[in-house]
Amino acid sequence: MRQVAIGIDIGGTNTAIGVVDREGNVLYERKPQIPTPQKRENPNWEQAKSNKLRDEFIARLTSEIKTAVEMVRQINPEIEVMGIGMGAPNGNYYNGTIEFAPNLPFVGVVNVAELIQANFPQLKYVKLTNDANAAALGELIYGGGKGMKDFVMITLGTGLGSGIIVNGDLVYGADGFAGEVGHTTLIPNGRVCGCGGLGHLEAYCSATGIKRTVYELLAKYNNTQSELANVPFNEMDSKKVFDAAEKGDSIAKEVFQLTGEWLGMSLADTVSHLSPEAIFLFGGAAAAGEYIFKPTKESLEKHLLPIFRDKVKILPSKLKAGTAAIVGSSALVWKEMEKNS
Amino acid sequence: MRQVAIGIDIGGTNTAIGVVDREGNVLYERKPQIPTPQKRENPNWEQAKSNKLRDEFIARLTSEIKTAVEMVRQINPEIEVMGIGMGAPNGNYYNGTIEFAPNLPFVGVVNVAELIQANFPQLKYVKLTNDANAAALGELIYGGGKGMKDFVMITLGTGLGSGIIVNGDLVYGADGFAGEVGHTTLIPNGRVCGCGGLGHLEAYCSATGIKRTVYELLAKYNNTQSELANVPFNEMDSKKVFDAAEKGDSIAKEVFQLTGEWLGMSLADTVSHLSPEAIFLFGGAAAAGEYIFKPTKESLEKHLLPIFRDKVKILPSKLKAGTAAIVGSSALVWKEMEKNS
Repeated sequence: MRQVAIGIDIGGTNTAIGVVDREGNVLYERKPQIPTPQKRENPNWEQAKSNKLRDEFIARLTSEIKTAVEMVRQINPEIEVMGIGMGAPNGNYYNGTIEFAPNLPFVGVVNVAELIQANFPQLKYVKLTNDANAAALGELIYGGGKGMKDFVMITLGTGLGSGIIVNGDLVYGADGFAGEVGHTTLIPNGRVCGCGGLGHLEAYCSATGIKRTVYELLAKYNNTQSELANVPFNEMDSKKVFDAAEKGDSIAKEVFQLTGEWLGMSLADTVSHLSPEAIFLFGGAAAAGEYIFKPTKESLEKHLLPIFRDKVKILPSKLKAGTAAIVGSSALVWKEMEKNS
Repeated sequence: MRQVAIGIDIGGTNTAIGVVDREGNVLYERKPQIPTPQKRENPNWEQAKSNKLRDEFIARLTSEIKTAVEMVRQINPEIEVMGIGMGAPNGNYYNGTIEFAPNLPFVGVVNVAELIQANFPQLKYVKLTNDANAAALGELIYGGGKGMKDFVMITLGTGLGSGIIVNGDLVYGADGFAGEVGHTTLIPNGRVCGCGGLGHLEAYCSATGIKRTVYELLAKYNNTQSELANVPFNEMDSKKVFDAAEKGDSIAKEVFQLTGEWLGMSLADTVSHLSPEAIFLFGGAAAAGEYIFKPTKESLEKHLLPIFRDKVKILPSKLKAGTAAIVGSSALVWKEMEKNS
């Protein structure tokens, strides 16, 4: 028998599903898969509607899981499904709920793990966690964190997510929500964050943060020569900044320099808390390579206590961009098996 | 037989020793005890001298441990010594060393745990850790953290120390030095910290930080009426600020307000990392009670992500000020026994 785990990524707009083996190979994948209906900003949005959407979502997800297993069995009848791991924004590992996720259609607290478990009573491991935590577990089980006991995973997407590994396991904290490094204060009373807070790391070091920095610098220098000066705010993205930097654009280069300086300063705080062996960077902004890694490393070292210097590795994630979310979620299953062995 | 543990606090100027039972009762105590010779700022300070001081220190400490055990045995012949726990600045749990401690007379790395263990080969547990980590273990084993799995201990002394408990054990990190929250950046490019860094939490929220804030505010307002305006910088301490606040002094009250606001903002970052059940405050500044606790709590809540609000308790440490260091160090022994049981 070949053991496999189901990995499910519940995202703000889509839910993706995959079947993954112990080495992280994706045997089956559907993505984008199950549309996650957007929560309307509507005063008439009530619990009944939320319950209906929830039930539809669970039914659809259940049928997709069955299909996935069948598809993989057709190729290899010898597979044994060990469990289901799910990653979701505001996912809570302790009780399997998704709680007050701003971009999901459920109102309040929904116990997704319990609802799915009810449809697969034969499976021992049906677990759910925060999406960035799932990515950290993916790095631990299949990626560059294999064999490490202490590291931090930073996911640089629209926002900045994080998952913290201490003593070989995720830090969940008292309530299951630990690992929100994106919402630590970088600049007191600084930029308004998506969460409403001020000066949070995520408002500076993320795709959105990079975009904001472009326009701050254009405003600062009144730079009309940069090719970025011809792009409207709503059309700017990290790729355009990267392309401009490659052509030597001074604004684009300073954007990455600043982003790295900020990220390094903030990660020094994370090191002062946790003293990890490594910090992995994952996601779109991390794809900018040395433009991000070099200033981040320099700034990290500059801001560290002497006892921490020249110790912490800043590494690119070894998870593949396309499948990291489902692969990370599937890692939950192997981790649970390990804990229970 | 009544089981006891030896607790030793190796400080910058003195080393104290105690014998502590499983409930945290101090059966014997000598403090101040073994003078820790100051490292001279002297170019002739070489390894040979350091080795001599180290050997003298270990011999003296060994004889003090033997005396302590004898003294307790005279009162209760039935005691069984389970081990020795030591707390020291820059103490490293993993290998038992004190590494480059700025205020200790040893040069470089000295394996204190190994040297003491050699003199007590019959003891199974001879362990050493950072002093703030020892305090956190004390809170976990004997104090307000009993039964908690996730909390943070903040010691407000001359500096700001911290110990982090995750899943019922200390976070040591990859190198054994995790838990340096005092050296996270509070204000980018702010006050010069004792470590040479800029804007670190310790430079604001500590006895030293409080002193600095007094003079910043006197300078800001050119306040000649405050009784603090008559005290030279080198004679200012937290007690004087507390006394002035009790009399309604506006500078003193603002000092505590600001200190709490800064501490709360910084602790919000700690919560974003770890989501602890509680944060314990210990030490001189914490003795200022509501002057510190109230603004700290308010600022913490203000800076937290919504999912973390109204969850984290800010509590005074339950360790007694006079014996906390030896009691905390002794807790290492019970923790080791628990891990090995």
